[in-house]
Formats: sequence, C-alpha cells, structure tokens
Amino acid sequence: MSTATETAETIIFRDGQLDLLDQTKLPTELTRLVCTNIEQAHDAIRRLVVRGAPAIGIAAAYGVLLQGRDADRQAFGEAMDYLATSRPTAVNLFWAMDRMRDVMNSHDDDGTLYERLHREAVTIHDEDRRMCRSIGANGAALIQGCRNVLTHCNAGGLATSMWGTALAPIYHMHEQGKAPHVFADETRPLLQGARLTAWELSQAGVAVTVLTDSMSGGLMRCGKVDAVIVGADRIAANGDAANKIGTYPLAVLAKYHKIPFYVAAPTNTFDLKLPAGDQIPIEQRHRDEVARPGGVQFVPDAADVINPAFDVTPAELIDAIVTEKGVIRSPTTETVGQHFRKLTLPS
Amino acid sequence: MSTATETAETIIFRDGQLDLLDQTKLPTELTRLVCTNIEQAHDAIRRLVVRGAPAIGIAAAYGVLLQGRDADRQAFGEAMDYLATSRPTAVNLFWAMDRMRDVMNSHDDDGTLYERLHREAVTIHDEDRRMCRSIGANGAALIQGCRNVLTHCNAGGLATSMWGTALAPIYHMHEQGKAPHVFADETRPLLQGARLTAWELSQAGVAVTVLTDSMSGGLMRCGKVDAVIVGADRIAANGDAANKIGTYPLAVLAKYHKIPFYVAAPTNTFDLKLPAGDQIPIEQRHRDEVARPGGVQFVPDAADVINPAFDVTPAELIDAIVTEKGVIRSPTTETVGQHFRKLTLPS
Repeated sequence: MSTATETAETIIFRDGQLDLLDQTKLPTELTRLVCTNIEQAHDAIRRLVVRGAPAIGIAAAYGVLLQGRDADRQAFGEAMDYLATSRPTAVNLFWAMDRMRDVMNSHDDDGTLYERLHREAVTIHDEDRRMCRSIGANGAALIQGCRNVLTHCNAGGLATSMWGTALAPIYHMHEQGKAPHVFADETRPLLQGARLTAWELSQAGVAVTVLTDSMSGGLMRCGKVDAVIVGADRIAANGDAANKIGTYPLAVLAKYHKIPFYVAAPTNTFDLKLPAGDQIPIEQRHRDEVARPGGVQFVPDAADVINPAFDVTPAELIDAIVTEKGVIRSPTTETVGQHFRKLTLPS
Repeated sequence: MSTATETAETIIFRDGQLDLLDQTKLPTELTRLVCTNIEQAHDAIRRLVVRGAPAIGIAAAYGVLLQGRDADRQAFGEAMDYLATSRPTAVNLFWAMDRMRDVMNSHDDDGTLYERLHREAVTIHDEDRRMCRSIGANGAALIQGCRNVLTHCNAGGLATSMWGTALAPIYHMHEQGKAPHVFADETRPLLQGARLTAWELSQAGVAVTVLTDSMSGGLMRCGKVDAVIVGADRIAANGDAANKIGTYPLAVLAKYHKIPFYVAAPTNTFDLKLPAGDQIPIEQRHRDEVARPGGVQFVPDAADVINPAFDVTPAELIDAIVTEKGVIRSPTTETVGQHFRKLTLPS
C-alpha cells in the first residue's frame, strides 16, 4: 500500500514491484497500477499508464528488475530488449536500457547482479530529480517576467520523477511565489494537457487555463501568450525536436507572432547519432484514440483516420533548448555540438 | 413522418412544422427534431441541432412561421427579434431576419401575411440551393488538380440546404468523378469535422480522412495538403473572415507552407457595415464543451477553461474568397468593394 503522500507519486519501486500512478485514469480517478512482471511493465508503458520521455526511461529501468532477484544475465538482457520495444519515439527509453546493459556488462559478480542493476535504476531516478531542479532554474531565467506561458501535452511532474521539464521552470518560480499563469493546450487525441497538466498544476496551486489545441493561435494573436515552453521526446544533433503531435504548428504560430518558443529536455533526450529530425521514427497509434475520445464514437466507420503521436519541430523555430546543463540558444548542429563538447571536457 | 430520402435532409418545413436533422446526434444516430414553436426553434439553433451560417438563416426564416397562420404583425416581429438572439456571430441569421422583416413591412394585406412570409422563407431556401451550386462551380476552378484538400469544421450540405460552401467545390468535382481526397480536421470542441464533414462526405462516396486539429501543420510540412478551403460565419468589408475556432491558425500554417487558403461563403455572409474583422462579436460557449467531450470529464474542476466558438482570419492570409457571384482574389476593402459594386450595377 502507498502512503497518502505517495498516492500521486509517478513511479515507486518497492519490494520488487513497480507501482505506477495510472495516468490513463486522471483526473477523475487517482488510482495506482502495480506491475510484478515485465509483460505488465511493457503494457503499462505502451498504454501510457506511465508516459513522458524521462518517466518512461525510469519505469523501464525498474521494469528490468521485475525479472526477479534470481534472474540471470540472459533474462535481464531479454528484459532490456523487450522493454525497449514498448514505444518507438522517446529516446530516453533506449538510453535507460543501454545504461542498464552497460552496467550489467561491466559487472562480473552474478551473485550481486540484481543489487547492482537496482542501484543503477535508483541512480537514474535520482539523477532525474536533480535534472528537474536544474531545468527549473535554467528555464526560469528565460521566462522571468512572463505573465502567461503556454504549454502543450504534459512535460510536468507526471512525465518525470518530480517537476518535469517544460513545467519545471513554472514550479521553480512558484516556489518563489512568482509563477506565471499557464495556458494548457488540451492536446488531442489523448488530452494529456487537459487531464494531466491541468491536474498537476492545479494540485500545486498554479493557475491554469485549458483550451483546445485550435485556440492557441487566436490567443497569440490577442497578445495573451508571452512564451511557449514544451518538452521533447527526442532531439537530433542539429536541434530538431520530436514532441507530442501539435508542437510543430505551435512553433510556427509562435514564430509568426514573434513569441519565444522554448524546448525543455534533459541531455539524455538528445540522440546525437541522428543528424536531423527527419530521421526520428514517429509512432503511429490506434485510430480509436482519435475516433472515440472517452469511448464515445465521433468519427463514422467509413472515414479514414490518421494518428501520428509526434511531430518534429525544426531547430530554426526553436529559440532555445533548456537542459539540466544549461541553455542552448538558437540551436544548430554547431551550438548543440558545443553544448555537449563542454560537458565532456576535463574540468 | 419524413420519407427515406428526406431522412438526411438538413431542413424541412411542412405542415407548419420545422423538421430538422439533429446534428448533435450524428454520426451514430440519424434522428430528426420537429419544432412546433419559436422557443423550440431558438433552442435548436442555440444547441446546434441545426448549425452552419446559411442553415441557421434558413431555419430562422422558417422559424418565424411557427408563430402560426393566425399570428399578427407584432407576433411575427417578436419572433424575428427573438430568433435573432439565438446565436451572435453568423450574420446570415440577422440577414434572414431583416429580409423577413422587410417583406412584412412592405406587405399590407394582413390576411395573406403568413403566405407572403412563407413564400419568402422558401425563396431564401431556394436561393441557398442555387448559391451552393454556383460556389461549387466557382470554387472547383480554384482547386482543379489538387489531390488533397484540407477543410475545418463543417461547411458542407449539413451547414446549408445542399452542397454547402467549402465542400461545394468538392461535390461539384465529385459529380464529374474528379473529387480530391479530403482531410477533415476533427474541429474541437464540438467535433463537427469528425462527426459531420466525415459523415456527409463518406455518405456521398468522397474519400475522407479525419485528423485532430493539431495534426494539420505536420501534414502541410510533409507536402500532403494542396489547398485549404473553409467556410465563414461573417466577413467584414475588408475581407477579414470569422469562422470556427481553429481557422486562423490553419491560415497562418497555410501561409508558412505556401499553400493556398480559400474561404467559400455566400454574399449574404458579408457584413459590409463592419470595416474590419476585429469588430465581429465572438460567441463564448459553455466550458463543458471543452471539459467534457462526449459527456466524459477530462478537465479537472479546479482548472479554468476558455471556449471561444470562432476566430477571425485577417484578409491578408486569404488567397481568395469564393462567393456564388464569383471569386474575390487577394481580398481587401477595395477588391471586396469592387465585387459588390459589380453586383449592384444596372445590367
């Protein structure tokens, strides 16, 4: 059983079980789903019980441990391969599996392998918390003085271990009593903005207004949006960023209205092997997510439906990418490269 | 009782009753609502049982007759005033009420007043059918050769007496076996694209694909949209056009991707008294339309919601306005003025 304060915790790993806040049920039900085997963890990621690029990475890292204390190298390796197939776009998932595999490969004592993998998953989780705080501070510097900030989907506490990425600067400013008002795009088809962003911000006491995705252009035209900040699921070496479907049109609208457009994401969201965003694989999801919101049929069976889960925003539409290590202004292959070269320089 | 072929007719007036296809129930239920008094007609317009600027005008014209054969001038006048309060943005409603009032004022035989008003409502309905055919022909010339046309909301047969405005060119080309494929934005909050446009096009045998409003930008970027065509609820003297919320961002996206953006509307949608679109009143609707699609709650009660039903697309983003009298290319106060001066010149 979770304690009262843990009820809204995105991810808890305890007693060999992965205990997830079921985000498909929010905001009307606050329930948890406990996974005891890797099939359940795979299904939870695929069905978006847990979602958001960093949270997927953390959940998958713990998910590997569901093979059990007595599992051998082969079983853990199979778990890593299998969990990596749960969703295709967020690179944090593959990053987390690679990291778990590297630890396994460099650890030669079978008797303590489970403990070593467990320690690595906890480290990934802890690093994520520090990442949220750093992105909060770095992003807050960019949106100081903004009265209204618009966001899309949910890149908040529910997408990570605590503050999130896009919402971290809001929470950082809220701690100082200076949070801007947030406009949350509802984010069709799965309504993560309406269900998750509106829920977690209002739980925290931050003023939030929900609008349909089609309303943000009109708001910008009326001068009611001072900045746009979103998360990312994968960022290519040139700064092109894949994020929830509807992010790209927001970036075009922000450019047209001369409103700054920011992407907030940890460095592990970068996939430096990909030179540009057109090589990011885009997940296509089931037609019912579009055709039957809330289980009610709206699209006639005779009509086709498309349902890409993400789109790619080209770097030239992004004013800055905020990471836990700093801010990349006017992202290009060069500025992104500089950001990462600085990180690997001997200090 | 309606005959089988009449089941899908938008508006039927017969035996002193206004018989409407209930568009709030589509696409899963094909049911009709019969109004026998003006309160019911007002409510049907307000609740969008009948919607779309031209259809609202026709329904309201017939609605006046629900005062009954024995009603006097005062009762008919009150009906016109009352029905004009059912919705604020579509100017066709006020145009139809003005036209009914002008007929009443110039008709001095009380004994035949009902018949005269009935004839005028039938004339408005008949003119609308001719308007649809003409817009179909005029618009088809603009989208010849397009493989994929994107539309927003429903400006089709369900919004008028037959082919609609934005969809009229599609139906015109379909008669010749040359209809392009149509992408229909679902059009949150009330999903008229998913429910109505997808339904009527697939009923007619035109290939249609539904997408969320957030997906059209990505489609344009991929080169999958050759033209955008939408209807309008009110057009100012300079060509600024109010239409369903989400039209303005589409126009910005079309401009950014160098895709032609067309508005199709009858001349009675122009409100030449208004010099520019910023003076068009915008209807604000109930939060539940956003917060509870299909009756299922998605937005937590603690969050605010905005729900403007329309936005205004400035004329400079519109490549052409298609009317039943011809095409206004690059609309401005000057070109719109020319279009209307030509119409009133002695022939």
